[in-house]
Amino acid sequence: MASGTFDLLHFGHVRFLEEAKRVGGKDAKLVVIVARDSTVMDRKAERPVMTEDQRRALVEALEVVDEAILGFEDFSIGRVIERIRPDVIAVGHDQEGIEREVRKAVKEKGLDIRIVRIGRFGKKELNSSSKIKRRIAEAYRRP
Amino acid sequence: MASGTFDLLHFGHVRFLEEAKRVGGKDAKLVVIVARDSTVMDRKAERPVMTEDQRRALVEALEVVDEAILGFEDFSIGRVIERIRPDVIAVGHDQEGIEREVRKAVKEKGLDIRIVRIGRFGKKELNSSSKIKRRIAEAYRRP
Repeated sequence: MASGTFDLLHFGHVRFLEEAKRVGGKDAKLVVIVARDSTVMDRKAERPVMTEDQRRALVEALEVVDEAILGFEDFSIGRVIERIRPDVIAVGHDQEGIEREVRKAVKEKGLDIRIVRIGRFGKKELNSSSKIKRRIAEAYRRP
Repeated sequence: MASGTFDLLHFGHVRFLEEAKRVGGKDAKLVVIVARDSTVMDRKAERPVMTEDQRRALVEALEVVDEAILGFEDFSIGRVIERIRPDVIAVGHDQEGIEREVRKAVKEKGLDIRIVRIGRFGKKELNSSSKIKRRIAEAYRRP
């Protein structure tokens, strides 16, 4: 299992998801939890550019993804983990908050789930939705 | 075969590609030609946000796509068609220019290739890279 907002899909997302599937071992099935618009608003104080339905559908269209589902309206990583019951949860290099909540929920519920942090990929490339947004905004400011 | 720039991938792209594969018939293989940065600069007078390598890799990561390759540096849809030799070429609703060039090349070379125009999908959704860019730029302008 992996999770994220996936607003403006980029190749860094794909590599994160490929690595998440790889750590699940041979024949692993990758389920991706896509954050609700309301959750993104609460946590990042910013509305995503793409709607939650579009973000979910685009993530599910990736070959590496077996299933993409929206999170709960009232965010709860613990309830998601109980619902999915994954063997492995992959967290991204920039998901410190999620990682803390995942570790807490797994410990509290006494679940046997491996938590794996996926490393960062190349910095040179545009592997950040925020950077992509800034670049677009700058291009539009120019006359 | 289908082609495009695919800068800021959205679900409209996925639906276009799914439809392109569908018109190819059962067991069709979908090859997607991704426009070079130089071609986009020439034709749209605008540099894509994502590099050609990233755009190609992201398109190829889609389940519906069997192969994604970059176009020629000096744009030539005729040479691409001769190289790929597709049975069907799908063009999008907003690819009038490409459709004209495809029809001209197929006729000139006397090739037996079916050209299919794919309809437009829902207008309500953000199925346009330009619209997505405008929306991002507007969000950033706000204080």
